[in-house]
Amino acid sequence: MSLESVWWSPAQDGRPAGAGYVDQRLIPHELRRETATTIDRVVAAIATLAVRGAPAIGIFGAYGTALAYELYAAGGNDYGNGNDAAYRAAAARIRAARPTAVNLAWAVDRVLAAGAGALAEARAIHDEQRAVDRAIGEHGARLMPERGSVLTHCNTGPLATGGSGTALGVFIAAHDGGKKLHVYVDETRPLLQGARLTTFELAAAGVDATLIVDGAAAATMKLKEVAAVVVGADRIARNGDTANKIGTYAVAIAAAHHGIPFYVAAPRSTIDFDLADGSGINIEERAADEIYAVGGVRTAPAGVAAYNPAFDVTPGRLIAGIITEYGVARPPYIESLPDLATRPAFGLLPR
Amino acid sequence: MSLESVWWSPAQDGRPAGAGYVDQRLIPHELRRETATTIDRVVAAIATLAVRGAPAIGIFGAYGTALAYELYAAGGNDYGNGNDAAYRAAAARIRAARPTAVNLAWAVDRVLAAGAGALAEARAIHDEQRAVDRAIGEHGARLMPERGSVLTHCNTGPLATGGSGTALGVFIAAHDGGKKLHVYVDETRPLLQGARLTTFELAAAGVDATLIVDGAAAATMKLKEVAAVVVGADRIARNGDTANKIGTYAVAIAAAHHGIPFYVAAPRSTIDFDLADGSGINIEERAADEIYAVGGVRTAPAGVAAYNPAFDVTPGRLIAGIITEYGVARPPYIESLPDLATRPAFGLLPR
Repeated sequence: MSLESVWWSPAQDGRPAGAGYVDQRLIPHELRRETATTIDRVVAAIATLAVRGAPAIGIFGAYGTALAYELYAAGGNDYGNGNDAAYRAAAARIRAARPTAVNLAWAVDRVLAAGAGALAEARAIHDEQRAVDRAIGEHGARLMPERGSVLTHCNTGPLATGGSGTALGVFIAAHDGGKKLHVYVDETRPLLQGARLTTFELAAAGVDATLIVDGAAAATMKLKEVAAVVVGADRIARNGDTANKIGTYAVAIAAAHHGIPFYVAAPRSTIDFDLADGSGINIEERAADEIYAVGGVRTAPAGVAAYNPAFDVTPGRLIAGIITEYGVARPPYIESLPDLATRPAFGLLPR
Repeated sequence: MSLESVWWSPAQDGRPAGAGYVDQRLIPHELRRETATTIDRVVAAIATLAVRGAPAIGIFGAYGTALAYELYAAGGNDYGNGNDAAYRAAAARIRAARPTAVNLAWAVDRVLAAGAGALAEARAIHDEQRAVDRAIGEHGARLMPERGSVLTHCNTGPLATGGSGTALGVFIAAHDGGKKLHVYVDETRPLLQGARLTTFELAAAGVDATLIVDGAAAATMKLKEVAAVVVGADRIARNGDTANKIGTYAVAIAAAHHGIPFYVAAPRSTIDFDLADGSGINIEERAADEIYAVGGVRTAPAGVAAYNPAFDVTPGRLIAGIITEYGVARPPYIESLPDLATRPAFGLLPR
């Protein structure tokens, strides 16, 4: 079973209703569950990154908008009685809490469009994400060994998606289905998402896990007989070229060198059907500070230059399969991926 | 020009003679030069890791023993006049300051054996190390491009050897010879020797350098058109299999994937002619704490397991050349390396 990062908390025993969330800023040191019962608190939870991960932010924004409906539009509270303008203003504030979060704007708009069915629509959005994650997990679990070592990079788990996650969802589904996996987790410098979040999520799901430094992945593949690698994706081109967290490409090359299948697990929404190949993906460079210092402790001399690409692009030819909610796409991706574009919608998730 | 990490400081202007050293514990934050003028201070500098790196420890121990000769055996001081037993006791204390340092014991013994020529012998040991480093640098520099990007992992520079270093010595020699290199430096988790030491040494030598996280090495090879990789070695088997800092193997695989020549720079003393191949090298596992925390800041949840191999083994078939003080050994190493064993000694350095 996996953690839930966001949920709806109904009014009960005199407590008001609200949008529930795990405060991810405290992880891995503490698992603190909070309920935002005002719009101010919903906005703050998003803006301060207490809630993070594009799908989780979308679902939380949907619940926040449902809360706004209950507070402003449904009447029976201090702030207004069926005051539609105040409801829309509250929803607009939630929508703007993280301006670049596409899922957030989409989810808020969808709940608004549902009128009096706001909460039901928010629950539907969450259910659809759970269904997509579950389908990815089930398709991917079949590719996992009955027993053995696997490896992942970065964070792709329940905290970020609101469901069971993508790559991590594969491991969790295999574990729940009785397979005995031992997951080696790259710490994933510079921001250490693997160390901080992935190990935490695997522990919560009861899956055996061991943390390694990124440089140890190749040696671990050889010495610990890693049977499969599964990672997530930020963006996938039509030919299977996959942008994901920096270091993914190195892991894919090492997996190929050892003859280990390297899988990408991601929802169809990650595939950019308009993008012919990975050469069209612009690699974001982030601040050098992420490399110079860890938790405020400086690790390099003042004045040294640093190169800090946030992502790299793994060529489709290094990828043994792309695990989506529709099943596992196999090479050549230029044939298997466009086929996915024609499938009926799996829920109403964006794109 | 490169930093000197250890040196002899003659008596001058009323200051006593002593063994000089850079306090490496303060790097990269400060370059502080100290002079140990008593045996207590010589022992403390070694025991507290202010002086580190096997060759540098050996040279510093030699100068420390020469200091002991001046204090105890040569007379004219407060502690004794030609008191040979006290001299030998002081040398034994230096010898025991780091019990596992083979170079230290060897260097102290060599200076003791030189009798009244103690200081001259210590200087000879230093000169021999400089000559070996210089020869490695010159042979390696010829393999470097006239202009372009190169990459290294971990620390192999002047701070550790007392000369100009091995892999770093190659870059410094190429730079001093007019080549325009830009060195990408892996930060080298878990202990960050690349971030802390290598960037510092390259800056001191005036060589352009850019720090990257270990996971970015593969992407950097591709995006920055890296022309060559040079690393050091802890131990080399007769067939070229090379044990070096964890992460080296991953870099070698990525270099092979991109068709980039991967070189190992190391003195002949690193080659274990009795070792047939890398399968006989026992991989030391170090404390998990090195992964869990950076500078005292915890980065992973309590209770998670970690796997922390200190070294990995890069197969000789991934290595384009092994740069020694005798020249560049090329594959097949099973033929080229044993040939080195027969060459006349290059100075008197230990095996």
